[in-house]
Amino acid sequence: MSLLTTDPRTGARTDTGIAETTPAELAAITEAAVAAFGALRARPRGWRAGLLRALADAVEADREALVAAALSETGLAEARLNGELSRSAFQLRLFADAVDEGGYLEAVIDHAGPTPLGPGPDVRRMLVPLGPVAVFGASNFPFAFSVLGGDTASALAAGCPVVAKAHSSHLLTSRRSFEVLQGAARAYGAPEGTVGIVYGQEPGAALVADPAITAVGFTGSLSTGRILQDIIDRRETPIPFYGELSSLNPLVITEAAVAARAAAIGEGLFASVTGSAGQLCTKPGVAFVPHGADALVDDLVARAEAAQAQPLLNARIHGAFDEIRGRLISEGGARSLVAPAAGPDGFTTTPALLEIDAADLTPAATEEAFGPLLVVVRYRALDEVVRALDAVPASLTATIHSEPADADAIAAFVDDVAPRVGRIVFDGFPTGVRVSWGMHHGGPWPATNTQHTSVGVTAIRRFLRPLAWQDAPEALLPAELRDGPADLPRRVDGVLELAGA
Amino acid sequence: MSLLTTDPRTGARTDTGIAETTPAELAAITEAAVAAFGALRARPRGWRAGLLRALADAVEADREALVAAALSETGLAEARLNGELSRSAFQLRLFADAVDEGGYLEAVIDHAGPTPLGPGPDVRRMLVPLGPVAVFGASNFPFAFSVLGGDTASALAAGCPVVAKAHSSHLLTSRRSFEVLQGAARAYGAPEGTVGIVYGQEPGAALVADPAITAVGFTGSLSTGRILQDIIDRRETPIPFYGELSSLNPLVITEAAVAARAAAIGEGLFASVTGSAGQLCTKPGVAFVPHGADALVDDLVARAEAAQAQPLLNARIHGAFDEIRGRLISEGGARSLVAPAAGPDGFTTTPALLEIDAADLTPAATEEAFGPLLVVVRYRALDEVVRALDAVPASLTATIHSEPADADAIAAFVDDVAPRVGRIVFDGFPTGVRVSWGMHHGGPWPATNTQHTSVGVTAIRRFLRPLAWQDAPEALLPAELRDGPADLPRRVDGVLELAGA
Repeated sequence: MSLLTTDPRTGARTDTGIAETTPAELAAITEAAVAAFGALRARPRGWRAGLLRALADAVEADREALVAAALSETGLAEARLNGELSRSAFQLRLFADAVDEGGYLEAVIDHAGPTPLGPGPDVRRMLVPLGPVAVFGASNFPFAFSVLGGDTASALAAGCPVVAKAHSSHLLTSRRSFEVLQGAARAYGAPEGTVGIVYGQEPGAALVADPAITAVGFTGSLSTGRILQDIIDRRETPIPFYGELSSLNPLVITEAAVAARAAAIGEGLFASVTGSAGQLCTKPGVAFVPHGADALVDDLVARAEAAQAQPLLNARIHGAFDEIRGRLISEGGARSLVAPAAGPDGFTTTPALLEIDAADLTPAATEEAFGPLLVVVRYRALDEVVRALDAVPASLTATIHSEPADADAIAAFVDDVAPRVGRIVFDGFPTGVRVSWGMHHGGPWPATNTQHTSVGVTAIRRFLRPLAWQDAPEALLPAELRDGPADLPRRVDGVLELAGA
Repeated sequence: MSLLTTDPRTGARTDTGIAETTPAELAAITEAAVAAFGALRARPRGWRAGLLRALADAVEADREALVAAALSETGLAEARLNGELSRSAFQLRLFADAVDEGGYLEAVIDHAGPTPLGPGPDVRRMLVPLGPVAVFGASNFPFAFSVLGGDTASALAAGCPVVAKAHSSHLLTSRRSFEVLQGAARAYGAPEGTVGIVYGQEPGAALVADPAITAVGFTGSLSTGRILQDIIDRRETPIPFYGELSSLNPLVITEAAVAARAAAIGEGLFASVTGSAGQLCTKPGVAFVPHGADALVDDLVARAEAAQAQPLLNARIHGAFDEIRGRLISEGGARSLVAPAAGPDGFTTTPALLEIDAADLTPAATEEAFGPLLVVVRYRALDEVVRALDAVPASLTATIHSEPADADAIAAFVDDVAPRVGRIVFDGFPTGVRVSWGMHHGGPWPATNTQHTSVGVTAIRRFLRPLAWQDAPEALLPAELRDGPADLPRRVDGVLELAGA
């Protein structure tokens, strides 16, 4: 039986012609990944950078078909999908640059010599790839966090083959993405098994349990994350599980900021809450607004009431959105400012606005609702916000809108906020995550479950481990660790040296 | 009731006068650690480097009393303990150097500006400390892997307070170590709670479960490691657990190496197997020796037969040593070459030598025996060794003794060995781990459970996480991330710059 895909704009279900991966197929896929890993280890860095660029080119060359597939399955707007595809190609190229540059290898050379503890041997260290990586894509990013997204790019950059698990909400997009990657990898001369894909929930679970898999990248719900972690905990050999799981992204607006620019904040906040129908892991889910800022709240209400309905990604998300909104009221004690109007199709909704006093904020009022929903939390003073933040789960981001006059209070406030998040945004909005060398997209549990990022160049560290060579003959060392001028930065006898030194 | 300590040289049990930590005491200790964490975050890097140096000075100043305490509890030789104490002070100073240098912060600045995806915000990233860390010391390193050891040094270097759990095999040493650290930290002006200690197994388990603890460093057995992991799995908030758990450290000697220097290899191997009574995590537990190398094996036999008995660290290790040796024969099919002579006291033993053919090597013949025991595996060709290595658990190290004539075969062999270990030693021995910038002391499961090291400067990464600042006002940025000349290396707009740039 083939798997079905659904168009959330129409509710129409289509037979994809894609069959669930059989156990025999899965075994062949992971076997090919293991073989590819061995072959990839022999290729130099420059070769791998070229592979990533070839993949980026192929993704862009297939833009029309990829976007069409995603349009038919996700309900996301065409402009958004085109932007996401560009972003995916950009990050493949950014990782190619990072591979060429070589700093990510953390190369260290300690020459043999006397030490305060006696003669020391020659020790050289750099990072090496883990092995085949399983990538579980997200429903909300059919490109950038899916088959051809950041986990795949960073794992391939590290030198790890990738086996993607196709998301059930965009099966056709996943297949097309895989075909593009596979075709480009073959054309480039990459070993078979450099990329693979599996379809279906059970085959996905079997993939995580497969002894050939050495790490798992996952972007999705906390509940599915827990299921995958349980599978890993039952493995004979535990492996790292990189989960990007859940985030409420509190946003705080000071009185001074309201006074200075309430209209701009209202416009930006509303766009950040409702962009992509609110289905972004960095969407602000709670906004702390001063009690005196009724005009700002009125503005948000007017915008929500005027908003058109947008389709959510799938029926499960739509159902959860309504349920959680109900609980935020019935259990969390929030008041409804704007009730969402659900479309008759079971997929579309208008935005929901809720309100609560900071003093009343409990964990029941801070459950993440994936979709266009914001809880406005009214407060009197920043120390009330600090106390209320104890009811907010640790998040990917926190955002602070303030004015220079607030500087002292905000400095102290930042100290309170920092341990709760992975990124602090000032006077802006957390959505629209920049893909760059320094971006950190991660946070304390339950935002993520590791000390790593899934966006930005340092995401590559997840799929690497250190290896040390002691007193190795020159010929047995990787090129990166041989004496003489090097094409990457290295720490030599404790001193960092730039490439070419 | 006070806890008892035992002198393994005499079996004498002494009342330490140390009481098990009560739940109320534990709560006060972790509360103080949380308070200290807040205070430490405000101190600059240079202050912390000074703290580490003050601790190193204090450890050396108390050398006589610390070594005397360890001598009374561990059965380790005085020279070894003095060397280990020097090593502990050295690594505190090495981490101080690393903190001053600042590269470990992985500072990145991406200025705002146009990108292929549109205007990008200003994003700056560096690593920040996790919070209070629990350190579980090892029985076999009362200094370097215990209360004042590498986990403590690297956690403090990161800016994390430490709560050590005193090892039951060296309670007096642990208490003295803590008093030295606490006294030096107070004298330096560090906040109370920068270091803490708990005594007893149940309080140790409660420490791991305590919500205040944000990471655990552990060096010890796989079985105890699993118990601690289970506690972590039941926590509401999961935390990283850095376990250095188990290692067999295979060593391979080629025919050419035997022909060139059998006597030196025999002497070095025997010393590596029996040093500190074989109670080192890097002790070679299996040595692959060519079938033709009878003289080398005879030499090992003669050395083992002539060796004096040495005390093991505690009765549990002694019991396990005998049991596991029995299983290596009864279940693993190994032949005894030299049976150990156990002393009447239940603590001392002479070395044990076993032998088996490579073709017969199964996991039952590769159980780690902590103590002076070596399984000699006889082989005919290197590909036989590669197959046999499948029966050897992944390890901290592998060691290869070869000659230049072996170069081609060894290159291929290294490719087979590398995925199984964290460090490859050439023509030397894996014990005597150099503490340096590049050392990696870690390996694939079950050697360790993470992609990190517990020896060397990069051990600090375990207790850090990234934090990003987006469009932050200059005054709210950490000093390390402000524009202008910097006292640490940074990556600015993708380009690595040295300090002072």
